[in-house]
Amino acid sequence: MRARVFVTLKPSVFDPQGTTVAEALHTLGYGAVKGVRQGKYFELDIDASTPEDARRLASEAAEKLLANPVIESYRIEVDAGAAEAVR
Amino acid sequence: MRARVFVTLKPSVFDPQGTTVAEALHTLGYGAVKGVRQGKYFELDIDASTPEDARRLASEAAEKLLANPVIESYRIEVDAGAAEAVR
Repeated sequence: MRARVFVTLKPSVFDPQGTTVAEALHTLGYGAVKGVRQGKYFELDIDASTPEDARRLASEAAEKLLANPVIESYRIEVDAGAAEAVR
Repeated sequence: MRARVFVTLKPSVFDPQGTTVAEALHTLGYGAVKGVRQGKYFELDIDASTPEDARRLASEAAEKLLANPVIESYRIEVDAGAAEAVR
């Protein structure tokens, strides 16, 4: 089963990497891009019997390892069965 | 309008960062995690009139700046109108 974990800095935390990307896009002529936030993205291939199990495991992994809960928030998506197709 | 860009290494490219995360998860007792691929995640706040415009702009940005098309692939999602709510 495939779980996707998106980790981003909390909105109140300054994101210099995102700001730099936004400025680079402006330099390239993309003034329509008003703001950029950069984050991390993880695809976990999980051996779980139900999507709920996969989500619970991904959530624990995010809390303990993938995200820093002090300054980052995370979001999880699980797509059951698609793991083989995508990977 | 909010566009999300997911950049991952192509499946044929070795991902040592993902492998390290997978090993760390095994050490923490999460043996059910069979594999991890790590990527980058960008949230672009785009001033566009239609979702199609936003997607086209995000796609150009990904091609030119956010992803390295030689070794990375990217995926784009646009959610119209949700930009203010999420940001």
